[in-house]
Amino acid sequence: MDTPQMNRKLRVKVVGATGYGGIGIVELLLRHPFAEIGALVAREAVGQRISDVYPHLAGFCDLPILAADDPAAQGAFDVVFFSTPDRVGMADAKAELAKGAKVIDYSGDFRFTTLAAYEDYATRLGKDPSHLSAELLGTNVYGMPELHRDEISRANLVGNPGCFATSCILGLAPALKAHLVKPVGIICDCKSGVSGAGKKAKTTFHHPERYEQINAYRLSGHQHVCEVERELGLLGGEEVKVTFTAQVLPISRGILSTLYGDLLRDATEEDVLRIYREFYAGSPFVQVYPSTAAVGTTTVRCTNRCAVVVSVDPRTGKLRIVSIIDNLMKGQAGQAMQNMNVMFGFPETTALDQPGMYP
Amino acid sequence: MDTPQMNRKLRVKVVGATGYGGIGIVELLLRHPFAEIGALVAREAVGQRISDVYPHLAGFCDLPILAADDPAAQGAFDVVFFSTPDRVGMADAKAELAKGAKVIDYSGDFRFTTLAAYEDYATRLGKDPSHLSAELLGTNVYGMPELHRDEISRANLVGNPGCFATSCILGLAPALKAHLVKPVGIICDCKSGVSGAGKKAKTTFHHPERYEQINAYRLSGHQHVCEVERELGLLGGEEVKVTFTAQVLPISRGILSTLYGDLLRDATEEDVLRIYREFYAGSPFVQVYPSTAAVGTTTVRCTNRCAVVVSVDPRTGKLRIVSIIDNLMKGQAGQAMQNMNVMFGFPETTALDQPGMYP
Amino acid sequence: MDTPQMNRKLRVKVVGATGYGGIGIVELLLRHPFAEIGALVAREAVGQRISDVYPHLAGFCDLPILAADDPAAQGAFDVVFFSTPDRVGMADAKAELAKGAKVIDYSGDFRFTTLAAYEDYATRLGKDPSHLSAELLGTNVYGMPELHRDEISRANLVGNPGCFATSCILGLAPALKAHLVKPVGIICDCKSGVSGAGKKAKTTFHHPERYEQINAYRLSGHQHVCEVERELGLLGGEEVKVTFTAQVLPISRGILSTLYGDLLRDATEEDVLRIYREFYAGSPFVQVYPSTAAVGTTTVRCTNRCAVVVSVDPRTGKLRIVSIIDNLMKGQAGQAMQNMNVMFGFPETTALDQPGMYP
Amino acid sequence: MDTPQMNRKLRVKVVGATGYGGIGIVELLLRHPFAEIGALVAREAVGQRISDVYPHLAGFCDLPILAADDPAAQGAFDVVFFSTPDRVGMADAKAELAKGAKVIDYSGDFRFTTLAAYEDYATRLGKDPSHLSAELLGTNVYGMPELHRDEISRANLVGNPGCFATSCILGLAPALKAHLVKPVGIICDCKSGVSGAGKKAKTTFHHPERYEQINAYRLSGHQHVCEVERELGLLGGEEVKVTFTAQVLPISRGILSTLYGDLLRDATEEDVLRIYREFYAGSPFVQVYPSTAAVGTTTVRCTNRCAVVVSVDPRTGKLRIVSIIDNLMKGQAGQAMQNMNVMFGFPETTALDQPGMYP
Repeated sequence: MDTPQMNRKLRVKVVGATGYGGIGIVELLLRHPFAEIGALVAREAVGQRISDVYPHLAGFCDLPILAADDPAAQGAFDVVFFSTPDRVGMADAKAELAKGAKVIDYSGDFRFTTLAAYEDYATRLGKDPSHLSAELLGTNVYGMPELHRDEISRANLVGNPGCFATSCILGLAPALKAHLVKPVGIICDCKSGVSGAGKKAKTTFHHPERYEQINAYRLSGHQHVCEVERELGLLGGEEVKVTFTAQVLPISRGILSTLYGDLLRDATEEDVLRIYREFYAGSPFVQVYPSTAAVGTTTVRCTNRCAVVVSVDPRTGKLRIVSIIDNLMKGQAGQAMQNMNVMFGFPETTALDQPGMYP
Repeated sequence: MDTPQMNRKLRVKVVGATGYGGIGIVELLLRHPFAEIGALVAREAVGQRISDVYPHLAGFCDLPILAADDPAAQGAFDVVFFSTPDRVGMADAKAELAKGAKVIDYSGDFRFTTLAAYEDYATRLGKDPSHLSAELLGTNVYGMPELHRDEISRANLVGNPGCFATSCILGLAPALKAHLVKPVGIICDCKSGVSGAGKKAKTTFHHPERYEQINAYRLSGHQHVCEVERELGLLGGEEVKVTFTAQVLPISRGILSTLYGDLLRDATEEDVLRIYREFYAGSPFVQVYPSTAAVGTTTVRCTNRCAVVVSVDPRTGKLRIVSIIDNLMKGQAGQAMQNMNVMFGFPETTALDQPGMYP
Repeated sequence: MDTPQMNRKLRVKVVGATGYGGIGIVELLLRHPFAEIGALVAREAVGQRISDVYPHLAGFCDLPILAADDPAAQGAFDVVFFSTPDRVGMADAKAELAKGAKVIDYSGDFRFTTLAAYEDYATRLGKDPSHLSAELLGTNVYGMPELHRDEISRANLVGNPGCFATSCILGLAPALKAHLVKPVGIICDCKSGVSGAGKKAKTTFHHPERYEQINAYRLSGHQHVCEVERELGLLGGEEVKVTFTAQVLPISRGILSTLYGDLLRDATEEDVLRIYREFYAGSPFVQVYPSTAAVGTTTVRCTNRCAVVVSVDPRTGKLRIVSIIDNLMKGQAGQAMQNMNVMFGFPETTALDQPGMYP
Repeated sequence: MDTPQMNRKLRVKVVGATGYGGIGIVELLLRHPFAEIGALVAREAVGQRISDVYPHLAGFCDLPILAADDPAAQGAFDVVFFSTPDRVGMADAKAELAKGAKVIDYSGDFRFTTLAAYEDYATRLGKDPSHLSAELLGTNVYGMPELHRDEISRANLVGNPGCFATSCILGLAPALKAHLVKPVGIICDCKSGVSGAGKKAKTTFHHPERYEQINAYRLSGHQHVCEVERELGLLGGEEVKVTFTAQVLPISRGILSTLYGDLLRDATEEDVLRIYREFYAGSPFVQVYPSTAAVGTTTVRCTNRCAVVVSVDPRTGKLRIVSIIDNLMKGQAGQAMQNMNVMFGFPETTALDQPGMYP
């Protein structure tokens, strides 16, 4: 793939810059040779520099934090990232698109391409099902390049996937595509580090309450299930139903999802390895491993990678996949950067081509 | 239950005293009003005091560490704990029993009551299947009082369960007994703190390598599966086959196992709660919670409790149980102490009747 | 020391029961053979059970949380613990004393025995210097039994020391008493676990922000300095001035203070060991170690102990003391319990006579 | 500063590639536009790929690990990093220099520029005082660009400083240079993360033994004192004697050193800020902060920076400096890379010009 000839760097606006998703994309933009940060917008700390809130950025990025209506945030940008909760992007994306920007939204607002699908999602979460930009639905694309690379390359509006959903979908997509497992009754047992809950301090994430604590939460339902079922259903052409368990544990960055499906036909680990490796042949960030591999969350930490470990339990006829990402990278800002690269024709790994620092 | 009239305290010997299982039972014996430590035996640090190896014990227990053949370790004891790897207890238990001791062994040596079952276990693990005290098999009891209280109360030889197995069996026993789930295809997704691997330093548990690391290991098989399948099979009278996943994460103490089974009949969470609470009505250490409960590993930390959270996924027809223990307590030394209490007719909670310190 | 003949258990009220200092004393009272909890008072979670807020207490203590003015909290109690911020105890202690209770207050309200000293403390902190119960000052005692055992045994009102101050004072008292170091210019370099900041969630203690973070804070002054200088000054009869540095790091429980003083005369480590061991001869909770001892915060974790490691740097003429406590035990609830024992004539170690669980 | 015109990339050999210091420089070389890795040498894992040992490097660096005598490790390299213990570099550096390489050694072998100074260092540590390449002493330079930039730019042989020493020297250099504090009696209270002890698993760094553990160690003496005293002595032209305390705590990366000196003249915090900022005016990696700054180890994590927080205690006449680095970056591989940049005339921040990922 050739790098596009750029006469100038892309100008980028980040809305929601003071959250973990915001500084994640800031950190990556600082590494990007063809993009520069034009404006940082947030609701908190307005008037301070981003490096006042995050001192590790001092000298690297000292831009001021602007209110959404600040004149300096109103110009034309090439890209706008909405690292914001549900219902912010749907209110403001249209105006950015009208000014010629490409928009990447981190929330659920643009992860569904029909109004019905969005309403189903919002209703299952007990949220307001009205969509403020319903006319945009259908022009948006689900921002997982491994499944929708071509559509993303042509899109102006991308809904960046959820972190849990990313780990589940990447871990299961080849199996659903190959009709390897029963589509109903798949189990997604997901474990996340604390940063997945964002920056806001809560008692349950207070260091002394968390350092020895693992717990499951929201057992009655989780917003990420809709994405998982929808995307996997599209792949196999059949309705998918999963049982999803969210668990949080005392690491900062990382998701490890253990995924179980009932095999529809005999398959050895070698068969599964082959199916998975073929599926991800053109995807630089997904690495498929056999069951004996010694990989874990630190293998992908601070990278945009997804490590997929495949195994089969012949005694019970189960496929078991361990899917591992950094929730703030492939689960959030890294995937957003990957989407930007695909949307603008940059090499997909631009700004994402270095390992994390270990240990 | 009345406390037996004791004219003197029980004299206890701990073999393998310098491991985590050894000091765990030492810590509990220090709280026990009717028992005292008579001898500490280990292979390492012989001649030092236990408080030289574990300075937190200074002033509480300063007994010397004896070699197994030290004369001071040869006398008659009322109880001998073998906190030792496989094949130590099977070699030495007979002599202790002959001197009148009751024996509680932490390893796999006495967790199976027939030679065939032991051979199956050892063979599946790739170990030597010969048993050095085969004539004792059948006199031993699986040391889980919630399932075998009466037999334990009459036993002289108890095989203390494994930590992963304890969490799985306690989480699933009522469902199997009630024929609520399919016995084949149950999923045990287990997460353990690092202390479950014992005291020996290894690179994978070196602090800088572990602090942000979650990983699955030994995906091809785990020794605890045999116990789980055997005990659950006895309860329901049917062959049980589970898919078991062991995962380790950066906490010190705690196991959280998430268990999934296919419901054989419609059941609500309330139905399951009732079945579970009835099953554990006489068991002081198991606490059954609804799906909304905010419990985790810190809820049971440093106690002999098992917290069982029940839920049902009606969309997929799954029973989902979260079973939580402290791997060094209900998963090891605490259960050993509980077994000692049952074997001698003490109240089951003796020395186990206080909460952990929080946070 | 004989245990007093008690016809009944002491009835205890805990004000501020839902903070870490509150549940710490609850946990210890559950172990105490001669005391029972009569009322739990707090401003938050009123009407819930303490075990709703802290599920690890379920079955051990399920008492309701009462508002301060709840009739059930008004009766006569033998002991009242105020585990509350400054200015709560000074408002309410008098009424409790009038009803015959002995009062132990955790705040700065009763750590100074003259109004001038209190005003100095409050002023240096920028707080309101008025004292609501100035007439009680002089009847109160600084609650460190190692320094004031006799006075505490006769007192009705005790000001429980601060956690940092406890570590510094115990580490330096023998040296000041023996005029071993210059009283001006002592350095207290103190490191605390996060629980020392209490239960309230803050961004700086949010798990992802803290897990790899050590920082110094409030370099311009810290409230504990007043206590340290006052108590050490009383011991040596000279004005003491210390440079105090507070640092927080990612453990839950523990303070390690490294203390440096200029030696006024030649002294070897053996000399210092002798002076320190003599000073603490009658104090069961302080253990003095030579410089080669392998002790740390886990040595004293969940106990009321203070480990004091002494060393001398002859090249620079410095005395260096490492003083280690559990900030929630000897630094808070443990010392409060020790004070209660001394005030009522119980053995000083009652309810404090067991090691922590390791690891 | 102009970037030198390079017709080709520098070819780099890393000896000791499998330790933390080795992979640190590998990670940085992967970011360097003018250098490439030519050979990785180690004693362990020979024949495996570096990415077999460190799976996070897969796809980024998959070079084989060579034995020191492997033909592929014998060619001419532009730079050789010895990330090895004492006495390896001194044996092998000469041959590399003879082949035209510039050498950067991480050990104590080339941190001293006279044989007498080396002998003093080795003797104080109880090591063999003979130096295998004494004739090179005097041609080597202490590799701290903030103090020796010009000499390093002309050197072929650089001794990379120790991690503790780096934090102490950078924190104290301006004060000594300005004769602001007494040169005898300075206190260096240093706290390090566990990675400073390297990759080798030991019981004291086993995760369950370390997660709540802070301890001081080697109170009788530490190898880094020699470097600190020597370099600071050179700055002020007077003999310097420090009291040094090493402490280790449960983080992976980071050193925070709190440094105390007796002021020789009145000075306000503003005075000190000015002196420090002038001293470091041309040093891009050192950032000087006032006492109110909210910085800690996470501020510099995964960067080559040193954060220096200055404060004065006028009550006791003390200067207090908090000096913070990432022990694996400015304390090791980052400083080695900085030295390489200076030695070859690259901009000093090349490959070191990005922030860490937070949190």
